[in-house]
Amino acid sequence: MTLADLWHELEPLGRDPGTGGYRRYSWTPADAACRAWFTSQAEKRGLAVDSDHNGNLWAWWGPRREGAIATGSHLDSVPNGGAFDGPLGVASALAAVDLLQEKNFSPERAVVLAAFTEEEGARFGVPCLGSRLLTGAVDPDAARALTDDAGVTLAEAMAAAGYDPGLIGPDDERLSGIAAFVELHVEQGRALAHMDAAIGLAEGIWPHGRWRLDFGGRADHAGTARFADRKDPMIVYARAVLAARHAAAENGALATFGKVIAEPGGSNAVCSSVRAWLDARAPDEGTLEKTVTTVRSVAERASAAHGVSLSVRQESYTPVVHFDQGLRQRIAGALGAAGITAPVLPTGAGHDAGVLAARLPTAMLFVRNPTGISHSPAEHADLADCEAGVRALAAVLGDLAR
Amino acid sequence: MTLADLWHELEPLGRDPGTGGYRRYSWTPADAACRAWFTSQAEKRGLAVDSDHNGNLWAWWGPRREGAIATGSHLDSVPNGGAFDGPLGVASALAAVDLLQEKNFSPERAVVLAAFTEEEGARFGVPCLGSRLLTGAVDPDAARALTDDAGVTLAEAMAAAGYDPGLIGPDDERLSGIAAFVELHVEQGRALAHMDAAIGLAEGIWPHGRWRLDFGGRADHAGTARFADRKDPMIVYARAVLAARHAAAENGALATFGKVIAEPGGSNAVCSSVRAWLDARAPDEGTLEKTVTTVRSVAERASAAHGVSLSVRQESYTPVVHFDQGLRQRIAGALGAAGITAPVLPTGAGHDAGVLAARLPTAMLFVRNPTGISHSPAEHADLADCEAGVRALAAVLGDLAR
Repeated sequence: MTLADLWHELEPLGRDPGTGGYRRYSWTPADAACRAWFTSQAEKRGLAVDSDHNGNLWAWWGPRREGAIATGSHLDSVPNGGAFDGPLGVASALAAVDLLQEKNFSPERAVVLAAFTEEEGARFGVPCLGSRLLTGAVDPDAARALTDDAGVTLAEAMAAAGYDPGLIGPDDERLSGIAAFVELHVEQGRALAHMDAAIGLAEGIWPHGRWRLDFGGRADHAGTARFADRKDPMIVYARAVLAARHAAAENGALATFGKVIAEPGGSNAVCSSVRAWLDARAPDEGTLEKTVTTVRSVAERASAAHGVSLSVRQESYTPVVHFDQGLRQRIAGALGAAGITAPVLPTGAGHDAGVLAARLPTAMLFVRNPTGISHSPAEHADLADCEAGVRALAAVLGDLAR
Repeated sequence: MTLADLWHELEPLGRDPGTGGYRRYSWTPADAACRAWFTSQAEKRGLAVDSDHNGNLWAWWGPRREGAIATGSHLDSVPNGGAFDGPLGVASALAAVDLLQEKNFSPERAVVLAAFTEEEGARFGVPCLGSRLLTGAVDPDAARALTDDAGVTLAEAMAAAGYDPGLIGPDDERLSGIAAFVELHVEQGRALAHMDAAIGLAEGIWPHGRWRLDFGGRADHAGTARFADRKDPMIVYARAVLAARHAAAENGALATFGKVIAEPGGSNAVCSSVRAWLDARAPDEGTLEKTVTTVRSVAERASAAHGVSLSVRQESYTPVVHFDQGLRQRIAGALGAAGITAPVLPTGAGHDAGVLAARLPTAMLFVRNPTGISHSPAEHADLADCEAGVRALAAVLGDLAR
């Protein structure tokens, strides 16, 4: 089965016909459809699929012994996201197995294809939730109590999907059986496009985190409350937005407010509260901390000036990740032997490979993104580049599982 | 029946037990409950209740001839609004009828109690929708097509409530039968509190309007898209928020952003669009225009700098209102005769009395609001002041209907 055929089957699942964007949130019907697709495709190839207690799916090819070579990515999306971020790595893993099977390759080590749960954190707010639970980077009690925007807890959502939420948490036995994890992913910037390369190899991941800012003011009539009498959290929020952009630009970092909820949301009322999420990333942890501290202190000063309360809570934090050098060198060698050049580049995006890097050697392959656009229906990669990605992944898996 | 008893019945309708705030949106079950309460209370007093084609309710006491004296207000609320804004005028009208009936007052002119529909514009976006339709200030075709946040049109909502939306629009016959309209309302600032007065008389209403700003950008990954490559509408929105506060403060006006919707709303994605509503008011129309123009030009410059599109649409506009001087003098005389002092004050809030002022002599009585807070669950007026309001309204109606 070609990558294009696989893609064709996956394409309509969870897609909004209006915008063409995806809403594949974990433990929703769209997510279940993606999981069913993955399971059926893996079984067609003779792979045995199981799920760990955290909802991550694993499809095994070959003898299930110590030292397995894992690959894969995630199937969930951000709100109105693109088709490639996540699913390209899963579909490419299936297509790479096809390539290897066509060549009658027989793996010495098991090759295992993984599809991780809630990588985007779009429903429960914690990115890489599935891999974090697996490695113990998230406390299971805290995870069970996470809620979506409708107030449904992760525990309730997993129970409804037939999982026992009491069992979520680290799985050292599973992790210790895996010798390496290689994640293929669409690039989310334009570095490869600038370098005229179809495939890249990740150096590391910028440290990054998510902070929730709660600005508490007081509802008031927009037509009668004097400015001096107001406690308007929207003013303070606006200052925080501009401070984040300014501080990040000065520090060579990134900072973004993409989600904001103003309550009660009447167009003729001063709002009583504004909740907003700051996403910040930087080349190193010191720069990240400096950037967030600046935003926080601007917001605190503005809050004090406007009689607004402020609480800042770190919802997630991922330290800098340097992918395993030995694994990267071996992958570069395998790619070279297959005639594939893959420049090495850093990324500001978090990935399950970054989480797993704390426990085992991991690496990432990137596929060129001509516009750099991601987390958008306009996200795109050319089919030829995606096919080059499949060939690269097959070469890597063939080498590592030999 | 005392005002406190009336209040006690009305209090639980449409109230959120969590916040104590009200969501009495027009043509919802909470609205229907308020209408049923009004109808039953009016009928208990021997008043004949009818509804006009726009859903405004009218309860008639006395001979239904030309020259009726109308009073009342509205029962709907802003999101999470207070108990007093609107309902105080309706409940006080019923209680004033009680006072007059206790004194065996027999009206020469009909006294008619009105409850207007969708004064707040909380569901369909146009404030004073019921009185605007009645006076012809809103085009019926445009009104029928108004939608709520769920996409339900006004026509659909009215049809579901048993009204024929084909019949909405001006009703000159009804208006020409009314000699004067007096609306009692809780004050929404602290002017009376500063003057140590329980009751005030309105001079006029500041011109005011609502503008919708649509900032269109491009969704992108918050961890990988360089600032230079972004089209982030949130940055431009933040500039507009601060420009509005600054320009209004400079001009002695008011400007507020209380409602904002960022799409798609992922915490790790640059948003693709921000929709926001600007509420602006000023002592005169020149100042209002100047204020809005400043906000607009700051937003336009920032949009251009960030590659963001901007459209600004005026959703509502109410010119300055000067209430009828002759009526105000007569009311001041009636109040004086009853031993009530009522200072004269302007207001920045729109009211049905302001809309009706275009067609007939209107006036407003304000009841002291000790904190000035309105459009909030914390909105409050002391019972003693509310009772003083009822006595004042009874004195006015007794004089005008004699």
